[in-house]
Amino acid sequence: MSEPTLHINLTSLQKNLNYIQTLSSPTVETAAVVKANAYGLGVDPLAVCLFNKGVNTFFVSTASEAVELRLLLQKKPTIYYLNGYSVTDYNAVNDYDIIPVLNSLAQIENFKQKLHNKPAAMQLDVGMKRLGINSYEILKAKELCRSINLKLILGHLSSADDRSDPANIQQLKQFLKLSKYFLNVPKSLSATGGTLLGKRYHFNLTRPGIGIFGGKPLKNAANVVSIELPVLQVKDIKKNEGVGYNHTFVSPTQKKIAIVGSGYADGLSRQLSNRGFLYAGSVKCPIIGRVSMDLITVDISKLPIAPINLSVLGPLQTIDDLAEQSRTIGYEVLTSLGSRYKRVYHY
Amino acid sequence: MSEPTLHINLTSLQKNLNYIQTLSSPTVETAAVVKANAYGLGVDPLAVCLFNKGVNTFFVSTASEAVELRLLLQKKPTIYYLNGYSVTDYNAVNDYDIIPVLNSLAQIENFKQKLHNKPAAMQLDVGMKRLGINSYEILKAKELCRSINLKLILGHLSSADDRSDPANIQQLKQFLKLSKYFLNVPKSLSATGGTLLGKRYHFNLTRPGIGIFGGKPLKNAANVVSIELPVLQVKDIKKNEGVGYNHTFVSPTQKKIAIVGSGYADGLSRQLSNRGFLYAGSVKCPIIGRVSMDLITVDISKLPIAPINLSVLGPLQTIDDLAEQSRTIGYEVLTSLGSRYKRVYHY
Repeated sequence: MSEPTLHINLTSLQKNLNYIQTLSSPTVETAAVVKANAYGLGVDPLAVCLFNKGVNTFFVSTASEAVELRLLLQKKPTIYYLNGYSVTDYNAVNDYDIIPVLNSLAQIENFKQKLHNKPAAMQLDVGMKRLGINSYEILKAKELCRSINLKLILGHLSSADDRSDPANIQQLKQFLKLSKYFLNVPKSLSATGGTLLGKRYHFNLTRPGIGIFGGKPLKNAANVVSIELPVLQVKDIKKNEGVGYNHTFVSPTQKKIAIVGSGYADGLSRQLSNRGFLYAGSVKCPIIGRVSMDLITVDISKLPIAPINLSVLGPLQTIDDLAEQSRTIGYEVLTSLGSRYKRVYHY
Repeated sequence: MSEPTLHINLTSLQKNLNYIQTLSSPTVETAAVVKANAYGLGVDPLAVCLFNKGVNTFFVSTASEAVELRLLLQKKPTIYYLNGYSVTDYNAVNDYDIIPVLNSLAQIENFKQKLHNKPAAMQLDVGMKRLGINSYEILKAKELCRSINLKLILGHLSSADDRSDPANIQQLKQFLKLSKYFLNVPKSLSATGGTLLGKRYHFNLTRPGIGIFGGKPLKNAANVVSIELPVLQVKDIKKNEGVGYNHTFVSPTQKKIAIVGSGYADGLSRQLSNRGFLYAGSVKCPIIGRVSMDLITVDISKLPIAPINLSVLGPLQTIDDLAEQSRTIGYEVLTSLGSRYKRVYHY
């Protein structure tokens, strides 16, 4: 192998989906969030796989992503886009059977004016202070929505990854209070984190994303993503020799290093410099020196023979492990992966 | 505008190229490094533009990038790829007139065995301890290269962005010493940083990348990249209300905030959370709360009316300003930008 390769295990994806489904009552639908190109993993095979396993509702971010998904999945599933209705979305909504999430009074009005015969969803801001109708606008929203075919009322929790945060119960109460104005419309409050908080957070539909892809806050998820990087060259360095840009690593001893063909242009963050790890089988090899655009230098002194590949993600190093080394979260690790990898899907 | 838009100014690109050319004697060739999809900006229009302005030699990272560039630019320019020759590159090199940089004795041997009638370049490791022939291998390399049509000898400086680093002069001396074994072959040591260190670092060919794209270590570069982000929604928040995931921002006063349709899936790092800035014209607006996957929340209390767009890169905030806010370097800001932007090229 001479190119960085991203392996995506669709069986693990299904396992995680199945597990999340078991958390809810059978009457609750489990949708899937596949925005940002399925968190960087490739919406094409992943959404098809989830659809074939029974997912009938998908969420993406923009009208453009929604149209792409409609063309991919054809007639059947319901497709919502979260970032709100803009008047420039008119053709997409009118022609492609995609459903905007209306996040403000102005969006409801714009939508009604030209698309009153089309379905819509509406989001309530229950404390995130991001997208959604504010609590003081609820009566006006109810009035404006009278002639709209509302399919779903959404909320979004700000702090669901922290079970102990009192914001969770406050926001649940706020959602219960505000969504009562739309009695007969199905409701959805929870992504992966909220789904893990218990059944009262589930309402009619949960919408996990990161959990399906194997990341926190889901614990003990099946590993979906592995990355193998090619070793381009191996060299010996002497005691006191510096490695990489600005010699931020100066070797305390003689070492054997591998130069690996991948870098921050492949989403392997510069934060991993002198801090992250790659694996040769089960042997953990520290990244030394700065991660550069296309190359990473790794201490392989412990290995008896030079490896052909090193792994940066896999069963021994999850997206959350790499996220900690990269000083971020698993979501950003995934969405950063970029386009240079050869993507291989395993069934 | 309802989608994040990346504006690329090709006139500025040419200005930066021209400026870098003026640093060298007329006999020195200025090549261009366009690896990683031209640092994320789009190799297609950028390489064509540079070629039309007289650049005749290009560098990319991998054989795959080199083939893509050959198909784009057709017959004329010389195309080197830096990451070394692998036996799996045989067809690419044989069929597409691309030139590998040989970085190890093994690579020279593999190349010779099947491609001895094709041109090659060779890299000397002068202190970076990354790719390249080690000093103790120089005689063996000279011997192996006897039957090879060597077009270029390369070195790469580890610390050229810091003029005062004594590694620069040490590595220059090492390059002079080692490259003497290849007397009649043209030589190249410097990327943007080395080019700024003075003419003795230029040899026959310089190979700037970041400088052409408007980034440090080039100072006062013409601004190549601007990014405009759509404001999806505006809302008022009260004193003591939290904003975004985990309410990492709690408002000390009443504020007006804009919710902007872009996030870390577009390469705007989570490191910008509660730390970065967007601009409304010339007014600097702080990012508040966490940057999320597709959304950023911004304090626009200072603005008299709600803006339609906010800018994250432009003349008032360069890639290096954003890099500082993102705790990285301009190169990583560029290569992270991702595929969701509408890219618009200005002539």
